[in-house]
Amino acid sequence: MRYVSFTRPDGRAAYGRLEGDTVVDLSAGADAPVDLKSAIAAGVLADLAAGESFARGEVALLPVIPNPGKIFCVGLNYATHVAETGREQKEHPAIFHRWNDSLIGDGAAMVRPGESVRFDYEGEVAVIIGKAGRRIAKDAAWDHVAGYAPFNDGSVRDWQRHNIQFLPGKTWPATGAFGPAMVTPDEIGDLSSQRVQTRLNGELVQDQPISDMIWDIPTVIAYCSTFTDLAPGDVIVTGTPGGVGDKRKPPLYMKAGDVVEISVGVIGTLTNPVVDEQ
Amino acid sequence: MRYVSFTRPDGRAAYGRLEGDTVVDLSAGADAPVDLKSAIAAGVLADLAAGESFARGEVALLPVIPNPGKIFCVGLNYATHVAETGREQKEHPAIFHRWNDSLIGDGAAMVRPGESVRFDYEGEVAVIIGKAGRRIAKDAAWDHVAGYAPFNDGSVRDWQRHNIQFLPGKTWPATGAFGPAMVTPDEIGDLSSQRVQTRLNGELVQDQPISDMIWDIPTVIAYCSTFTDLAPGDVIVTGTPGGVGDKRKPPLYMKAGDVVEISVGVIGTLTNPVVDEQ
Repeated sequence: MRYVSFTRPDGRAAYGRLEGDTVVDLSAGADAPVDLKSAIAAGVLADLAAGESFARGEVALLPVIPNPGKIFCVGLNYATHVAETGREQKEHPAIFHRWNDSLIGDGAAMVRPGESVRFDYEGEVAVIIGKAGRRIAKDAAWDHVAGYAPFNDGSVRDWQRHNIQFLPGKTWPATGAFGPAMVTPDEIGDLSSQRVQTRLNGELVQDQPISDMIWDIPTVIAYCSTFTDLAPGDVIVTGTPGGVGDKRKPPLYMKAGDVVEISVGVIGTLTNPVVDEQ
Repeated sequence: MRYVSFTRPDGRAAYGRLEGDTVVDLSAGADAPVDLKSAIAAGVLADLAAGESFARGEVALLPVIPNPGKIFCVGLNYATHVAETGREQKEHPAIFHRWNDSLIGDGAAMVRPGESVRFDYEGEVAVIIGKAGRRIAKDAAWDHVAGYAPFNDGSVRDWQRHNIQFLPGKTWPATGAFGPAMVTPDEIGDLSSQRVQTRLNGELVQDQPISDMIWDIPTVIAYCSTFTDLAPGDVIVTGTPGGVGDKRKPPLYMKAGDVVEISVGVIGTLTNPVVDEQ
């Protein structure tokens, strides 16, 4: 199944199923949890009654989970990206975070702030946690996954490099694109062979399979759940392959009028225009 | 005034005023906001009716703000600390974060996880935001401050150094001590001359005035509010002076049975025992 959070034509926030180009509201029933995160936590997604249907174009897609309790971002998780940054590969993953108010959904504009001339894409696959846990063993990690979605970890490189911690470049408003939908594991088949592909104005600029990750998804879940609790709706953004704009010669940054797409095989394609902050 | 969040003897979460060794409940009135953060946001703290009073020993102090929207931690903000880490001083501050579920209040135990043999203190002063803002100018920054509190940014150094991002060492449960109280600016007099002092089992291990910060409080508020919105109840933990345990020769780590105190002049003293995780 594919699940989305969205704003209905009447302006109400909702969540539901994406079926082809149709969005089916699952949030209107009297017993329906308040949001997709709560529905995941309650384990009732598959049981919710179908409400109104909308054409996909009639609704505004929100970030798949608009309100994660925690968003983990994995840095330096593909050897090609480690190499292009000139950094050393370490024994453990680099983990940083972004705040929820930096998230947007499929179709919404990624916003380049006036402070930046180095606004960059990072195509990734996001893991959405379905079951709480602490110190989750690697071989139990898959049981804690609700689904997957494409993610564009839009990065204000000038501010990311101000000092040694990434946060000031990683959490600007409308820089984290997350969607279109959460795809459940049964829908995917072989996850590891899905390719993370980024296209900027149609040009393929990143392209690697999930199997190229240095720390695979169970390892990352085990690692993050060691130092903090995981809860349903938490999101782990698993890192970007080589090919980021900042390390190209010449550099390739996102600018107003661009369109950036992140595809992750059968998990789908996330498409966002780029605008300058007004 | 001094404001605290606490658990009442009857088990209910509350907030109120700390008057000497008495805690006055301000949260029981029908119109009282749900928590201290909301009361700050509503601007009604000074107007709330006094309810029951308790001896300080009767209540369990919670983190001053148990549920900040955002916690910013400033790294490398005292030259003595930059020097002991062997790092280069940059033009802009290093900003990372911790999650709320890592916070504890005055008197609660700081917990060393079984995964660490390098559990370290960091005495700091925390700024609690009182008024929302984005791109706050330095000369307007003081208007956005609700108050100050001592903070111990307890650090699991082994995990902090796993890779180049600090988060995995900075957000373990029960490692961020925050209290005892939020002290309003009118109570403080000259802020810059207040000294951030850390004592481990009574021994003074960190001791510098706030005026030694590389990036002063208005600069940090202006900087953080450039890349993300600030809201009432957000917390900026402003960095630690030199003298951390990890850089001493020999190193000095916190262990079960220790008592660690962070004093920030008239802002008060935060005291926490240290235990091993069970």
